[in-house]
Amino acid sequence: VTLGVAGVGLIGGSIALRARERGRRVIGFDLDPRAAALVDEVAPSLDALGERARTLVLALPLDATLEAIRRLRGRSDYDLVLDVASVKVPVAEAAHGWAPFVATHPIAGAETAGPAAARADLFEGRTWAYVPAGDAQAAAAVDRARAFIETMGGRAFPVEAAAHDRALALTSHLPQVVVSVLAALVAGGEPPPELAGPGLASTLRLAGSPWSLWEPIVRANAEPLAALLRELGGRLQGLAADLQAGEVGRLASYFEDAHVGYERLVRARRPETNSAAPPLS
Amino acid sequence: VTLGVAGVGLIGGSIALRARERGRRVIGFDLDPRAAALVDEVAPSLDALGERARTLVLALPLDATLEAIRRLRGRSDYDLVLDVASVKVPVAEAAHGWAPFVATHPIAGAETAGPAAARADLFEGRTWAYVPAGDAQAAAAVDRARAFIETMGGRAFPVEAAAHDRALALTSHLPQVVVSVLAALVAGGEPPPELAGPGLASTLRLAGSPWSLWEPIVRANAEPLAALLRELGGRLQGLAADLQAGEVGRLASYFEDAHVGYERLVRARRPETNSAAPPLS
Repeated sequence: VTLGVAGVGLIGGSIALRARERGRRVIGFDLDPRAAALVDEVAPSLDALGERARTLVLALPLDATLEAIRRLRGRSDYDLVLDVASVKVPVAEAAHGWAPFVATHPIAGAETAGPAAARADLFEGRTWAYVPAGDAQAAAAVDRARAFIETMGGRAFPVEAAAHDRALALTSHLPQVVVSVLAALVAGGEPPPELAGPGLASTLRLAGSPWSLWEPIVRANAEPLAALLRELGGRLQGLAADLQAGEVGRLASYFEDAHVGYERLVRARRPETNSAAPPLS
Repeated sequence: VTLGVAGVGLIGGSIALRARERGRRVIGFDLDPRAAALVDEVAPSLDALGERARTLVLALPLDATLEAIRRLRGRSDYDLVLDVASVKVPVAEAAHGWAPFVATHPIAGAETAGPAAARADLFEGRTWAYVPAGDAQAAAAVDRARAFIETMGGRAFPVEAAAHDRALALTSHLPQVVVSVLAALVAGGEPPPELAGPGLASTLRLAGSPWSLWEPIVRANAEPLAALLRELGGRLQGLAADLQAGEVGRLASYFEDAHVGYERLVRARRPETNSAAPPLS
């Protein structure tokens, strides 16, 4: 069965590569000419793609995803349409009542966007979240979405749209914004690059993320993100006052909480849980 | 010539492994019994080690480094004594006038401390900063320190103590504190671990760093660190207000500055400068 992929960047391109590896024919649409290398055929437009495929993946930035849902939801001849955007509430709202649609989000990525970074094993063993069905009609699409996620190598994980967005504000949107602001501040101090080491490289790895991808995410999830930024900013300013007074008790307890959090959110998630962490490089 | 290594953890252990690979005999002192595996002989005390070696590396936490300098500087029979602590002003002050002493700092590391993480190539191609000589007598020691750094595979980089500490506040101490506070905040929100992805893993990699190692660093470099924390906290709170007002202009410009900083401080520092970044894992 032909798979349509709208947006053949890192995520869409990786989906296309994996699907073709599994013997599916893939038609893609993307403005980037490099996308042609990842698909069997390039459609001239989103509408043309929408007419050719019965299973359709919208692998577009959030704003383009919402626009594509509005453009395509009039049609009734899909088995499955899924998106992969990082915020789920506006997607679930835009697609409300569209039976073949399932809102999903693969928790995988790289700091390099674009088709050149695509790889067939990007989702191997990674969580791929999806918003479970609200009614009987949609349940068939959700079953198909779960099966699709499994063919991609992902681990299907059900989560309501609002719970997803609150969690991602913590695990993704806040870290991204903090890393970008931190990188800007560090670079602005103009330290000799020779004194930037492997720890900084790891911390700043997300600092190359494109703003065009993040602007709609940040806008769509502004409320929980703003609350977290305010809280974090307050904690950092409190620490500044502590340090100037020679107090380090609060910072010590943050280190302790950080160890617990790192264990739970990072080390326990690694395939090689019990082995030593690899050296930074 | 016998090399003495006080503190056989990640850094001291890696120095010992490299030196032995190059045919040197290494005597070490450490309270951790695992250290014995990395050296030819274990000294029963710092004083015993100090009596046996003419070249001595102090690979201890900052506070222990300062204490060791006070204990050993009465002796005059060293060719070279160097430390590796992350803050240089208090070390340079404590060792002022001690001819064989050179304050140094290898910009290498891993988020895992301790002898088990040691490896002979830890310093390969990495900057190893040193504080240049203040007078003719010390110049001989500095020449020996440069030669020592080169045998370790490091790139000797001269920097004055105060300039080093200001730069490291930016490139290391601020990122460490921010990552620890961020990890504590993220974990406190109790997101499902399934929704923590590879980007978060990279961002939080330093969150496992031991407080015992960081407490003396943070205290010693409190002033520039506090100023940076205050500035960063203010920027994050400003962004929170922006987001709630639907404004993203400042955040967009931080992303832009972050790209430039990432390029200059991370990508340009990689051996494989021109290749694509590896995927997050």
